[in-house]
Amino acid sequence: MKTGPRNLITDVAGLRVGNAEDHSIRTGATVLVADRPFTASVDVMGGSPGARETDLLAADKLVNGVDALVLSGGSAFGLDAASGVADALLKQGRGFVVGPVRVPIVPGAILFDLINGGDKDWGDNPYRRLGAEALANAAEDFALGTAGCGTGALTATLKGGLGSASIVLRSGHTVGALVGANGTGTATVGDHPNFWAAPYEMDGEFGGLGTWPHPVPFIETSWTKRDYASAISNTTIAIVATDAVLSKAEAKRFAVAAQDGIARAMSPAHGLTDGDLVFAVATGERPVVDPIVDGMHLGHAAAVCLARAIARAVYLAAPATGDPVPTWREKFGR
Amino acid sequence: MKTGPRNLITDVAGLRVGNAEDHSIRTGATVLVADRPFTASVDVMGGSPGARETDLLAADKLVNGVDALVLSGGSAFGLDAASGVADALLKQGRGFVVGPVRVPIVPGAILFDLINGGDKDWGDNPYRRLGAEALANAAEDFALGTAGCGTGALTATLKGGLGSASIVLRSGHTVGALVGANGTGTATVGDHPNFWAAPYEMDGEFGGLGTWPHPVPFIETSWTKRDYASAISNTTIAIVATDAVLSKAEAKRFAVAAQDGIARAMSPAHGLTDGDLVFAVATGERPVVDPIVDGMHLGHAAAVCLARAIARAVYLAAPATGDPVPTWREKFGR
Repeated sequence: MKTGPRNLITDVAGLRVGNAEDHSIRTGATVLVADRPFTASVDVMGGSPGARETDLLAADKLVNGVDALVLSGGSAFGLDAASGVADALLKQGRGFVVGPVRVPIVPGAILFDLINGGDKDWGDNPYRRLGAEALANAAEDFALGTAGCGTGALTATLKGGLGSASIVLRSGHTVGALVGANGTGTATVGDHPNFWAAPYEMDGEFGGLGTWPHPVPFIETSWTKRDYASAISNTTIAIVATDAVLSKAEAKRFAVAAQDGIARAMSPAHGLTDGDLVFAVATGERPVVDPIVDGMHLGHAAAVCLARAIARAVYLAAPATGDPVPTWREKFGR
Repeated sequence: MKTGPRNLITDVAGLRVGNAEDHSIRTGATVLVADRPFTASVDVMGGSPGARETDLLAADKLVNGVDALVLSGGSAFGLDAASGVADALLKQGRGFVVGPVRVPIVPGAILFDLINGGDKDWGDNPYRRLGAEALANAAEDFALGTAGCGTGALTATLKGGLGSASIVLRSGHTVGALVGANGTGTATVGDHPNFWAAPYEMDGEFGGLGTWPHPVPFIETSWTKRDYASAISNTTIAIVATDAVLSKAEAKRFAVAAQDGIARAMSPAHGLTDGDLVFAVATGERPVVDPIVDGMHLGHAAAVCLARAIARAVYLAAPATGDPVPTWREKFGR
């Protein structure tokens, strides 16, 4: 088993990712797009989700092809990023055909980054612009850490960010994850630099420190953010993707399985103040031989990639003046 | 933070647990009961659930008090265990009052243990009897390991079992977990005796070995059971409980948060062939000061207790002739 060549979600052939940032506001947006519509689903486990166009992803709903997915900062204001993407996609001739018109299908989700040291007196909502910029920047390579929807992200103890990771399975399927890591909990164990996701690390992609070898007292595993307002302002939003042929229902199972990646990389997770949510994408390029066994490996790979992506997001975060918490590199001097 | 005095779910005051086993069939049932009805909810993440009376646990449904919960082996046949419990509870004068009649409310869930070396030519379905026996055995102390619904449980590499654990929070709330650990995945890391749940271990309750310090290749984290039939015959079923005052909706969140305990203790988990499901119980003895912050700690405690309970189930399993896999103690000679 090895990572894809980029160790990014774009190792799934045909996918491109674009970021846009406003460093004054300390926020941004990230868009995932493909040359043609893809199968998608979503699973919501957090208690404070913020999303749009997620209802149509249910297996019993009509639309089978999604044009793009958007992850954005900005809490509910950030849902406008998907509007900017939809308008831009229409100009490219993209969208679900309804007689003479097209409607680009652009589900989106947000994370809460309104209390992170940025200037939130933005006047006109900036997210429509950020979404369009992110789409224009879409490419196979993109930045991680303090970038895109992870620009203003924070965890309980360290700066969060944008993460990604991939793996190529023995079946030949590629699986990748993309995440804005901004959870209530911690990505590292107690006061130590070791990541919760360490058992799943590949090629030293987040420092190669291994696991913290000892049990950690409950009080150290239950840290939430610094004060009441920040403690309730969170959310990890993610996309997992594969080149496998999956139905919408199979993509739902792929999203559910991936939630374990959040559980393994963040502690605590999936609480009332997290909007933790995972989109699933299947580009449908590579058939599945056995839907049960291959489905199991794809789901496990999604969980593993998502855990690794969260650790990479925190590991790669870059400092900015006035950050409420240090970056991993600042805190541990590495 | 410390465990409750028994390190069992029955550290939540008022709860009792009873086991019944048939060692010839290699199966059993476990009942959780209280002196008076309790608030309950459920969250289902697995792809192959088997359950009854779970629909009425939704927050919009009528019944607010549950009389007992049943975890059973036997796949769909094991749902009869709850029937045996309901009949016995009626004789005790228990049940939801509807005019002149009472209907005991007994949600139940099953795990698949039909391919475990036991004699499954049982003639009449034995689970009604096992359920009634388990109820009759209900007490504050009960056996773990090869007991109750965990009697015939298996994980991918080691014998599974029945587990439990508890914690007392700084708020004074007690949280406990009870689990039949029979998952698709592994409870230990690769070929090593160390448990996935090790970061959360308290007082050496599953050997005190700490974590496995190095990353593990994907192939070793993706083991499923030995052959095709056993690979698709799984399920981790659990109950988490607290003495906190929770609404049905808050109990739902408590159940969702607890799912992370399965993710952290089993790898892989929550797949298509797992019926992974968590019941939540709130006895309502101790008010919650802040539903958000206390709710977060309660949910995290539930996840931590459930992870520990899964590791204890595997750690405490006892061998039987013809087991398809070794116990932890057999395999690691400890």
